[in-house]
Amino acid sequence: MKVFIGIDIGGTNVNIGMVSEEKQVLDETVIGTEPEKGPENALNRVASAVHQILKAGQKNADYKGMGVGLPGLLDIENGCIIEASNLPGWQHYGITGFFKKHFKIPVFMENDANLAALGEYWLGAGQGSDNMFMVTLGSGIGGALLSNGKIMRLHPMAGEFGHMIIDKKGFPCTCGRKGCLETFVSKHGFQRLVRERLYKHPDSSLQNYALAAITPPIIAAHASQGDMLANRIFDEAGEALGIALSNLINLTGVTCIICGGGIANAWDLLQKPVMSSLEQNVFASIFSGVKIRKAALGEKAGFMGAAYLAANSV
Amino acid sequence: MKVFIGIDIGGTNVNIGMVSEEKQVLDETVIGTEPEKGPENALNRVASAVHQILKAGQKNADYKGMGVGLPGLLDIENGCIIEASNLPGWQHYGITGFFKKHFKIPVFMENDANLAALGEYWLGAGQGSDNMFMVTLGSGIGGALLSNGKIMRLHPMAGEFGHMIIDKKGFPCTCGRKGCLETFVSKHGFQRLVRERLYKHPDSSLQNYALAAITPPIIAAHASQGDMLANRIFDEAGEALGIALSNLINLTGVTCIICGGGIANAWDLLQKPVMSSLEQNVFASIFSGVKIRKAALGEKAGFMGAAYLAANSV
Repeated sequence: MKVFIGIDIGGTNVNIGMVSEEKQVLDETVIGTEPEKGPENALNRVASAVHQILKAGQKNADYKGMGVGLPGLLDIENGCIIEASNLPGWQHYGITGFFKKHFKIPVFMENDANLAALGEYWLGAGQGSDNMFMVTLGSGIGGALLSNGKIMRLHPMAGEFGHMIIDKKGFPCTCGRKGCLETFVSKHGFQRLVRERLYKHPDSSLQNYALAAITPPIIAAHASQGDMLANRIFDEAGEALGIALSNLINLTGVTCIICGGGIANAWDLLQKPVMSSLEQNVFASIFSGVKIRKAALGEKAGFMGAAYLAANSV
Repeated sequence: MKVFIGIDIGGTNVNIGMVSEEKQVLDETVIGTEPEKGPENALNRVASAVHQILKAGQKNADYKGMGVGLPGLLDIENGCIIEASNLPGWQHYGITGFFKKHFKIPVFMENDANLAALGEYWLGAGQGSDNMFMVTLGSGIGGALLSNGKIMRLHPMAGEFGHMIIDKKGFPCTCGRKGCLETFVSKHGFQRLVRERLYKHPDSSLQNYALAAITPPIIAAHASQGDMLANRIFDEAGEALGIALSNLINLTGVTCIICGGGIANAWDLLQKPVMSSLEQNVFASIFSGVKIRKAALGEKAGFMGAAYLAANSV
């Protein structure tokens, strides 16, 4: 049985798993990254965790390859990080080289957002979709476009969906631009929407919070309890997300949209305004084929996508 | 010598040409479309024109295939038009079938905007670019994205660049959306910008025109003569085009941009605000590789792209 090892290294945790060619997750584990101890320390602990799984693993498993996911800007050819804000000091360390030396199998590397999309395509909400866009709504916004299970991109830095400008005279974004999608749908975007509207809603239950303490989950909880301001904010965020997705869909023709990340947990609040905006803005001939779904794999999408990358590269 | 026949059928004219595998345009001609006489009439006259060229043509020419460009929404599989506003009544007529029967060579069909992009890639301003986006600025805005000389799209209706929303609270577009790129950079977009600003510029030389008679070339002429309002309008249109291109570049990573169509004739007025907007909005790591150029082939790009399509399909 051909088996592929997937490793998803994040700023906090490393998700590790073994997936068979037949899409069976045979084993999985999570260890802390502790990035401040440097790459060698973390990679040695990852290697130990993998060895432990291999020892306990099935006898007929034939480990054919490994995929490694990392955040930030990567030098895939040389198997190292160029820039990753949550792994400071890891730049230029030969990560795929380390694993190749350790495990004597082919090792492949990819950006973690792209791997999460590949994971959802292989084992999650994107199964069976010949094209797919995965948008990850968290502290920032990530995006990855797939065609037949392959990442579509013309430049290693491309795929930037969160800073699509949809409101050119709009609010300044953390990136320096104005009116990016992230000024509507991100932690700072939601806080901005609350800040601008709170004074008009003196009866809102959100008045009981310090502005800096308000997060998307808090707004979602109050929206679910019927607070009008909280609901309006989700409507505006959903509309903005729908506009950016419409621009993407009209341009590329992608018809399967998967929404992941923390903010997508409030999918019941986002879905309606997103769909209504898509219906209004996507060309009718394309809209009829559009499907939009919540991501299914959560934190595990990354290692699954890493295993898929290995399975499709060896 | 392998030769390919390119035919670009528009609402007014049909451009026809023969191009050798070695990129030599051996012969070319233009006839009127007269679309109101119906497809059979027009296609018969196109066939006669092609026969005339073939008769006069070089002895060693080996005609290997034909490409046909058409406007609007096409059913490429069945070789017919689904919907084309400037070829009314042509729907469902078997266009590739007609030419196959007539010339007994393989015939391929594609949207004219995509063929213009292929033409610029093969013989024009996009030569040598492994990826390329061609934007056509005319009464509307067209767009085509190429990767290694192939049209990138996931859906036959995709590639819609003119209705990218960049100003979600902006002016209503002819399409029903708000703040599309076309509300800034198109005939009606330019007229709208003049209408909104004319009252603030009582000394503008554009005051001498009826609003409905003002066109992009007129505004361009006055801008070149130093009229402040006309210059401001090109600055705003160029900034908007730059924002939409930045969204596209950040998303796809395309780095070679070719601008064609009538409005691109005023490239000396557009270039500066477009570049300044790209510099502000494209991620620095991508921007360093971005090239933006005026299209080189004009009306001939379509038949050249049609010949290229045939050369790459047989």
